[in-house]
Amino acid sequence: MLINSEILATGAAFPEKTVYSYELDEKYGHPVGTFESKSGVQSRYYISGEETAAKLGAKSAVQAFKKAGLKIGDVDLILGASGTAEQAIPCTSALIQKELGLDKSGIPCFDVNATCLSFLTAYNTACALIHAGQVSRVLIVSSEIASVGINYENVEAASLFGDGAVSVIVQKNEVSDERGLLGFHMETYSEFSDCCEIQGGGTKLHPRLLGWDLPKDDPRFLFKMDGPKVFKIAAKSMSNFIDVLSSKAGFGLDDIKLFIPHQASSSALTLMQRRIGLDDDKFFKYNKNYGNMIAASLPLGLHLALEQKLIGRGDKIMMVGTSAGISIGGAIIQL
Amino acid sequence: MLINSEILATGAAFPEKTVYSYELDEKYGHPVGTFESKSGVQSRYYISGEETAAKLGAKSAVQAFKKAGLKIGDVDLILGASGTAEQAIPCTSALIQKELGLDKSGIPCFDVNATCLSFLTAYNTACALIHAGQVSRVLIVSSEIASVGINYENVEAASLFGDGAVSVIVQKNEVSDERGLLGFHMETYSEFSDCCEIQGGGTKLHPRLLGWDLPKDDPRFLFKMDGPKVFKIAAKSMSNFIDVLSSKAGFGLDDIKLFIPHQASSSALTLMQRRIGLDDDKFFKYNKNYGNMIAASLPLGLHLALEQKLIGRGDKIMMVGTSAGISIGGAIIQL
Repeated sequence: MLINSEILATGAAFPEKTVYSYELDEKYGHPVGTFESKSGVQSRYYISGEETAAKLGAKSAVQAFKKAGLKIGDVDLILGASGTAEQAIPCTSALIQKELGLDKSGIPCFDVNATCLSFLTAYNTACALIHAGQVSRVLIVSSEIASVGINYENVEAASLFGDGAVSVIVQKNEVSDERGLLGFHMETYSEFSDCCEIQGGGTKLHPRLLGWDLPKDDPRFLFKMDGPKVFKIAAKSMSNFIDVLSSKAGFGLDDIKLFIPHQASSSALTLMQRRIGLDDDKFFKYNKNYGNMIAASLPLGLHLALEQKLIGRGDKIMMVGTSAGISIGGAIIQL
Repeated sequence: MLINSEILATGAAFPEKTVYSYELDEKYGHPVGTFESKSGVQSRYYISGEETAAKLGAKSAVQAFKKAGLKIGDVDLILGASGTAEQAIPCTSALIQKELGLDKSGIPCFDVNATCLSFLTAYNTACALIHAGQVSRVLIVSSEIASVGINYENVEAASLFGDGAVSVIVQKNEVSDERGLLGFHMETYSEFSDCCEIQGGGTKLHPRLLGWDLPKDDPRFLFKMDGPKVFKIAAKSMSNFIDVLSSKAGFGLDDIKLFIPHQASSSALTLMQRRIGLDDDKFFKYNKNYGNMIAASLPLGLHLALEQKLIGRGDKIMMVGTSAGISIGGAIIQL
């Protein structure tokens, strides 16, 4: 299978404030080194002041438009691809359209959400819409504010996350060469849905249903993760998952230039690398200064690998991750 | 354009509790008739007890599977298509998978969100994924709990909404006849994003950022609507929008058996009908006993029209609506 399409450009934007792991150690009363040792994350970005998901998303999109040599807004669709939303209503992509100054443009906006796999799902959706002739060029924006939902009681989960946004512009490939989506595969196992969740924020624990009375640091509104369990599921499924994905694409690990894994945590990355047996130069780790940026994490890998010229036109890459749900998802892409 | 696909079956589920407009009049101290006169809604359903979006969604899906003669779970994808979420994380479709007892199935789940246009956007996405050969059969579930976010200070907006869920199963059309999506069009104008919103529930007004201190009935966590403005935008754009949609599909109002509008409110429906000049038998109104069920509203029209045999195989229908964003969207479908 091939969906002919082209990744035209990427852009990334981060909050102004860098937060070092030793600062979190100090703030939450742990010995220096605790936060970093749990996650492998040395520093990450947290929003402050007026920074929002839509603003960061728009900033990353402006960078992508510039790099593509396009004027801002020269797309047929804006796809929001975040695991978190800025508001309950409307969808974040509409708020990003506004921040881009495209508020009178009429460019359609909708969001795709598969938590940490939202980018891959949105990329797959964009490729299908291009293939169906519905659109020619799509802006995909993953913009995540993880910091507001961190539960510092759980040092392991707390140490992982960072805020940031990544934009990717995908367009129809007009040339006859083979570029685009070679294969996509995803599996969801909701038996583990409570291993990774934020219960609040939706209609189930709406403040009205709670009598408008939230205890301070109410854990129901913070991210809860059963790390070891997620780890175990991912470890158990990964090899078989990659086999299925490879057979769908007709290409496997031997054919790819770079494997970009979701940057869940350093220990998860180490385990994944060992399981699939890739050398360091083919297995991309980049969480040290960013943390896990939820759905923005996978496209950040794409962005950084392109910027660092680890990959380029014609190369095949594999992007694979796990997400709350729990889902496992991946794509093989020819650049 | 035609994306060959088939709407195989639909299902709907509602909360146990019916809420009459006169009950709301009494409860909120208005003369009897106030709530109904504002919206044209005589009764709607509100959740109570343990009812949730995922449970209602699963109930509607079970009905659709049964009507299709399929065993529960005989699909390649579960697409959540709601304007509201049950939890911040994970996506609602994963929670629906769980309620369906498919928690070990691996069926991929993701959500598509364009507020009230989420169903149409998800249907369009499903058709594109079918066209690309990625999936053969998709369960789309719109499940909405509007009642928790109603601001009863604004009688006009408060009178409109109801809770409920609708499922639609779409599959590849194996027969050589022309069935499926004939045309889809959507426009988003975020200059009006603050005309229809719930500011809270996402990362921007997370309880942590508010010091975990929410005033009772905090309007930021309730639905806010500038009715007259939305009305004006819809009225101004509708005729031109339908022209564009018709030209994309190659079929227009004269070719369709039934026009299914989003049931925003009775006055909006009256205006829309006048603007586009359709007789009562071609313009479907069904909000009287359901209200506006957000994204579940448009597929409810499809479900009711099929149940009432107003439409059937081979008929062309047009589904059009507005949503927060603000977006206008529509599809022309051959059944």
